[in-house]
Amino acid sequence: MSDKIRKKTTREIYLANSERTPPQIMSNLILWLHNVRSMHNVGSAFRTADAFGVRSVLLSGYTPHPPRPEIAKTALGADESVPWSHAYDPGEHLARLRDDGYLIAGMEQTHHSRLLPDYRPGSDTSLCLLFGNEVTGIEPQWLDRCDLLLEIPQYGKKHSFNISVSIGITLYHFLACRLP
Amino acid sequence: MSDKIRKKTTREIYLANSERTPPQIMSNLILWLHNVRSMHNVGSAFRTADAFGVRSVLLSGYTPHPPRPEIAKTALGADESVPWSHAYDPGEHLARLRDDGYLIAGMEQTHHSRLLPDYRPGSDTSLCLLFGNEVTGIEPQWLDRCDLLLEIPQYGKKHSFNISVSIGITLYHFLACRLP
Repeated sequence: MSDKIRKKTTREIYLANSERTPPQIMSNLILWLHNVRSMHNVGSAFRTADAFGVRSVLLSGYTPHPPRPEIAKTALGADESVPWSHAYDPGEHLARLRDDGYLIAGMEQTHHSRLLPDYRPGSDTSLCLLFGNEVTGIEPQWLDRCDLLLEIPQYGKKHSFNISVSIGITLYHFLACRLP
Repeated sequence: MSDKIRKKTTREIYLANSERTPPQIMSNLILWLHNVRSMHNVGSAFRTADAFGVRSVLLSGYTPHPPRPEIAKTALGADESVPWSHAYDPGEHLARLRDDGYLIAGMEQTHHSRLLPDYRPGSDTSLCLLFGNEVTGIEPQWLDRCDLLLEIPQYGKKHSFNISVSIGITLYHFLACRLP
């Protein structure tokens, strides 16, 4: 490469971000974290949701919610820029999502899951991605109420990704599959 | 969904992973972390590298390297299943990568970077992905020696992803773009 490579400044990155329009699907995409334990993971979810321009973040059960300094630290302030809503009872979110015509996609490794790369919804799909606890995943009663289940293909000797990494990969998939 | 959804057990996940073959590009893909500070991030990089079946992980500068309990904890043991190599001087890795015909792709937001979704190399490409420090990124002298620079498109009010999330997104991109 040339020896005149210039990194973008924070302001230049912000301006470039503002000039881009994410594919339409992202503005109808909702990220839902139920019974996620770690504030670090919640903060990271906000940061990634901001970067990819998702519509909102839903939190339920014992998932910690803003304002908390531990969330804000990892979110780098994205907990103030991304709309969010918390309900102890996931049924509240579910009812509203159903009313709004959302498909609920549970992110879980099950015998009924489709591989993420094979699922490429149309750009006008309203999709909510449900992530469960870091260790135990989505509880059976909520798994059962999902419209579809998705898993990220893996090839390794270990059995799962970190939830923050899974969220990044999944959101990128929906972004990339609708880019021109 | 049906009320008979059954999650995969750890053993079933492992068996499914073993039966899948990752696209050829993954077996020629190397992940390189230079001057990455956090053991949590190094551990997460190993875990993601294992899941996506990359060839090896290179560590350089002050990037912590195995064996360290803090790395093993986040890696869930992937630091023992993924081949890795550490050198204080990045030039050592660079010389070997050049000898082996590797392209070096620096992951950095610069005025010369291509957007990740637009870069779809052939399946026989030997590619090394270089990630720099969590805050300051890749130092100018190493940026300058990359063959290409890539950045993940962003649309938000904040200016970057967490490095663990970036690694997951980037590896998924190369996997997904070579899947049938």
